[in-house]
Amino acid sequence: MPPSVSVFGSAGFTGALAARLLDRHPSFELVALTARSDVGRRLDELYPHHRVPRELEALDIDRHGEVEAAVVAYPHGAAAPLVAQLRAREVRVVDLSADFRLRDPAVYSRWYREHQAPELLADAVYGLPERYREQIRGADLVANPGCYPTATLLALAPLAREGLIGEVIVDAKSGVSGAGRTPSEKTHFVTADENVNAYGVPHHRHIPEIEQELAELGANVRITFVPHLVPLDQGELVSCYVTLPAGASLPDLDGLYAEAYADEPFVELAAGPPGVRDVRETNICRISAHHDERTGRVIVFAAIDNLWKGAASQAVQNLNVMFGLREAEGIGVGASEQREAIR
Amino acid sequence: MPPSVSVFGSAGFTGALAARLLDRHPSFELVALTARSDVGRRLDELYPHHRVPRELEALDIDRHGEVEAAVVAYPHGAAAPLVAQLRAREVRVVDLSADFRLRDPAVYSRWYREHQAPELLADAVYGLPERYREQIRGADLVANPGCYPTATLLALAPLAREGLIGEVIVDAKSGVSGAGRTPSEKTHFVTADENVNAYGVPHHRHIPEIEQELAELGANVRITFVPHLVPLDQGELVSCYVTLPAGASLPDLDGLYAEAYADEPFVELAAGPPGVRDVRETNICRISAHHDERTGRVIVFAAIDNLWKGAASQAVQNLNVMFGLREAEGIGVGASEQREAIR
Amino acid sequence: MPPSVSVFGSAGFTGALAARLLDRHPSFELVALTARSDVGRRLDELYPHHRVPRELEALDIDRHGEVEAAVVAYPHGAAAPLVAQLRAREVRVVDLSADFRLRDPAVYSRWYREHQAPELLADAVYGLPERYREQIRGADLVANPGCYPTATLLALAPLAREGLIGEVIVDAKSGVSGAGRTPSEKTHFVTADENVNAYGVPHHRHIPEIEQELAELGANVRITFVPHLVPLDQGELVSCYVTLPAGASLPDLDGLYAEAYADEPFVELAAGPPGVRDVRETNICRISAHHDERTGRVIVFAAIDNLWKGAASQAVQNLNVMFGLREAEGIGVGASEQREAIR
Amino acid sequence: MPPSVSVFGSAGFTGALAARLLDRHPSFELVALTARSDVGRRLDELYPHHRVPRELEALDIDRHGEVEAAVVAYPHGAAAPLVAQLRAREVRVVDLSADFRLRDPAVYSRWYREHQAPELLADAVYGLPERYREQIRGADLVANPGCYPTATLLALAPLAREGLIGEVIVDAKSGVSGAGRTPSEKTHFVTADENVNAYGVPHHRHIPEIEQELAELGANVRITFVPHLVPLDQGELVSCYVTLPAGASLPDLDGLYAEAYADEPFVELAAGPPGVRDVRETNICRISAHHDERTGRVIVFAAIDNLWKGAASQAVQNLNVMFGLREAEGIGVGASEQREAIR
Repeated sequence: MPPSVSVFGSAGFTGALAARLLDRHPSFELVALTARSDVGRRLDELYPHHRVPRELEALDIDRHGEVEAAVVAYPHGAAAPLVAQLRAREVRVVDLSADFRLRDPAVYSRWYREHQAPELLADAVYGLPERYREQIRGADLVANPGCYPTATLLALAPLAREGLIGEVIVDAKSGVSGAGRTPSEKTHFVTADENVNAYGVPHHRHIPEIEQELAELGANVRITFVPHLVPLDQGELVSCYVTLPAGASLPDLDGLYAEAYADEPFVELAAGPPGVRDVRETNICRISAHHDERTGRVIVFAAIDNLWKGAASQAVQNLNVMFGLREAEGIGVGASEQREAIR
Repeated sequence: MPPSVSVFGSAGFTGALAARLLDRHPSFELVALTARSDVGRRLDELYPHHRVPRELEALDIDRHGEVEAAVVAYPHGAAAPLVAQLRAREVRVVDLSADFRLRDPAVYSRWYREHQAPELLADAVYGLPERYREQIRGADLVANPGCYPTATLLALAPLAREGLIGEVIVDAKSGVSGAGRTPSEKTHFVTADENVNAYGVPHHRHIPEIEQELAELGANVRITFVPHLVPLDQGELVSCYVTLPAGASLPDLDGLYAEAYADEPFVELAAGPPGVRDVRETNICRISAHHDERTGRVIVFAAIDNLWKGAASQAVQNLNVMFGLREAEGIGVGASEQREAIR
Repeated sequence: MPPSVSVFGSAGFTGALAARLLDRHPSFELVALTARSDVGRRLDELYPHHRVPRELEALDIDRHGEVEAAVVAYPHGAAAPLVAQLRAREVRVVDLSADFRLRDPAVYSRWYREHQAPELLADAVYGLPERYREQIRGADLVANPGCYPTATLLALAPLAREGLIGEVIVDAKSGVSGAGRTPSEKTHFVTADENVNAYGVPHHRHIPEIEQELAELGANVRITFVPHLVPLDQGELVSCYVTLPAGASLPDLDGLYAEAYADEPFVELAAGPPGVRDVRETNICRISAHHDERTGRVIVFAAIDNLWKGAASQAVQNLNVMFGLREAEGIGVGASEQREAIR
Repeated sequence: MPPSVSVFGSAGFTGALAARLLDRHPSFELVALTARSDVGRRLDELYPHHRVPRELEALDIDRHGEVEAAVVAYPHGAAAPLVAQLRAREVRVVDLSADFRLRDPAVYSRWYREHQAPELLADAVYGLPERYREQIRGADLVANPGCYPTATLLALAPLAREGLIGEVIVDAKSGVSGAGRTPSEKTHFVTADENVNAYGVPHHRHIPEIEQELAELGANVRITFVPHLVPLDQGELVSCYVTLPAGASLPDLDGLYAEAYADEPFVELAAGPPGVRDVRETNICRISAHHDERTGRVIVFAAIDNLWKGAASQAVQNLNVMFGLREAEGIGVGASEQREAIR
């Protein structure tokens, strides 16, 4: 009997995608989709291409809390109280908000607001499987990383572990789906089309999350991080400019990255700079690393689909790890993957 | 002393563009910009690329009515009362709404709502200069045509005049700016990007306007008209499929169109199907007409910029005609145009 | 032991996608990929997102002809000789070109060129499974339909069968991938971006194919068909304007279409006009039909992905039928589909 | 009598735009358009939206050399010999290639090839009017800057002059027109659409040009510069990350930039990050500068239209300066500009 799972907050882009992936997942039983808007409508009215013919329900925690697992796709701040209710019912949770990503509630309150469930922070595991796979296995509360931190940390981890990050600047480019489903001037087609510009300058909220995790890897740096909006729907590229610490010598980048990711099913190394098209609608992070001998810097690019590896499919990856399933189940793309699943 | 003009409803796409064109117009004095939202903000905050450093003001009819001319860019229904107030002050008006396009108030009320100023209908001239230039010259109230009717009527007029339209189907494609500035699910980048679909099926409100004017040209037909949204910002293409009346013989299309538009500064005939890129940010309508000998039908394409010839620059063209100015003043594109203006 | 299959002409958009789908297909063994360009390169260099790590080989008919099935993705004219060679070796072929779609070689030569293998025409089955499923089952040579005919015929078949088509005009909109992989002025980003225009006016080569199949369904009509290029990569919408025969009465459209497609796994009926986003990267054709009571016409829209249902995934659908497999195998999208496949 | 000018190499994107601007320029007489492809075709066939009804001619240096001024839009390497021929006839030249931008022929040959006319280097003036206005006035050979250097140098000059640049990383994003008119896999719509990726890593040819000019301003730095292709046609954004020299204190950025550009007609300071839409089809560079107090870095953004200020309209700006005309003539956008020109 497959574990039961519900998606809380299914009307938004990431919740809806999580619902789609779990609806077709061979080893989970999708029970319910709750939503804070569009209650009573079917998900395939809102998102025909997801083809999930299920109704969105208003939250009824007593009823909806009767599941083994939950994906919570609420906004920052709104997520924590719901997660607390679910945890009180012993539901194992993957939370897509920022609420449980920062270990220090003081940092959280500086960048967001006062934390609504600080007592749960100690239990939360940062849900980047390539980094915390073992801890996720036993976790009851997994804080799914932000899209930018996912790409940035996968890009930088091999360097950080080797003590090779002196300074780092991250210039990120994201498709418009990253701004969410709510219509606004920013997401209006006529604003975003034929345009590129930076936003969240200079203090985007993903900064403390990236710095926290780089520090865990041994790199205590203050980063400059600037995201830009580009005219495409799904996809995200981070361009990381690393200055080595004084005295450090340039590593064999190819060897370093090949070794770091040899066994990772969802990290792909590319010879040249990756394009976001290469990873569209996949759980894959595609990376290339380059020496700039003129300046001694290292340049690393990482491309992901912000809605997939940057949110919903990574949530499913985390669920797979938490429940002891094959990690690629329900989110794999390769031939071997599908054949293995089927035979 | 150039005539004074104000733009009423300057915060939307078409009002803002009218403001830009009039701000730089050599023969009008732009006095004020009123708006129903964003009052107190400057137009160049909302639309940096228009570069009009003027503040949006709340409407004060006593003060703002003291002009010789007005461009009204209010929504359908809301325009008529304001136009009535302006006309009571003898301001000459170009109205961008549908409120004065339909001569018969019964038709208006069937497609829109009860008319708010039917007493003005008799004075209104349909503002397609290529058709009603003489009447516009003396008019005090000009109803600027809708974007689809503009392109469709310019495409079909030469055939209609010759009694060559038996039946006609118009398939239109428009950029997203045609849906206006208000953010909505429809105008969200993620909805419109990589998408094409029809809307307003089967009863788009531009139908009665097109049928009225075709009838004036001698073609009493009921048209099928279907607009589609395509992923671009500005631009509109109409593809018109004409079945000739029984017994009519195929005309010399090239000759017919060349003669019809020989003296028109803003109609351009193309050998092959026009692209909307060809007319972006111009007041030009680019047309090609083709025989389909297999079926005997005539296919006519017309491309315009929906915000320009489909709205704001055509409004300026109308103002030029009304005030006896050179028709291309402030909206011309060619070399001869600019040189003439300057020397 | 699954049947062996090779893809001939894998470097183009449709051949590459067929290779990807067959590489992961649970019931075919993909043996080789041949190509006419890029020989020696791996498919995942050309198309990283397909993730098929296989080398493109120059054609060696003796070696490559040793398979049970072939997908041929050669240009029109070039396909016929290769198909003849494969058939001589008793390989069962799905051909993506136009070479075997037209039953009458005289029609073929009028629209294309002299036919290179007319002796095979009698054996060829038109590969629209929703129409010729039984014949495809036993076929050794299946002519995969063109993308426009696929959408148009699925849109019109229910009307054609009931004798409800008097006249029909088809206005089609296609993404740029329909123009193929070869770079040209037409496919240059700067030409296609922010643009819409018609092409192939008035004699696009898909016309005879559509007319042939409409006639088979009982509708002997000459159609007007005009395709347009729109700024998106994959996706195609046909807007069909049908005038009923004199004396015919308007049918119950919803009932007619629901009945026609009740058992079709890849035809989806929508309440409102379908968008091409709704079917991106699927084998699904999404259809809506509408009465226009003012004119008595019927308007039918059909959206497909031109590379999928319009080419490569329909080829796999045909292979599934030919080899007695479940029709959705390797190309399904729904939850039930995947679960069924896996358990 | 206005000075005569011809455009050499008018078939490409930048040459064609220069031809359009000069065709309508009130104070130049455009004599001829030469081209290396498409000879005999009219420019308005290739680029309908430019509306320049003139024929492209094969180069005949004896005939075409009889002008007072020339814009040369040849590829790097091919330009120098033509410029030498024109200079031998005493034609005053603005060259759009890289051939005369680098003062040191050894640097040129390291990044490009052996220089074909090194004897002219001493006469060449780097054509960034905001920097070298006085020298351009008297120059006979002006090397029009590259698009990336234009935006980067305008972004960084105020800091460089004050000795505030310790290190700098430039992450640039460009529309596809920057890759030129020649169709290729890179410029294919299906490659560029829904994509972002870096190119020219880590050694793009604009690096030595930027470093040379930063050094002239007092900043002897080795820069990291990485351009990215984004899915839009025209527009370019540079994001510059500046680490101050040890011991330098953060300047009053607003004051610094306001003072630096107070009198510049084509530099615009914005409060927030500029978008490339804001400068589309203008000669304007729009800049914002920001402190990142957490890291002490300065972040500067600059947006231009790569074909305009990044190439063709800057060439006209240079011609205006060379011939003592008003600098905005033929390329101005504002109200005051046009009115001044006309009265």
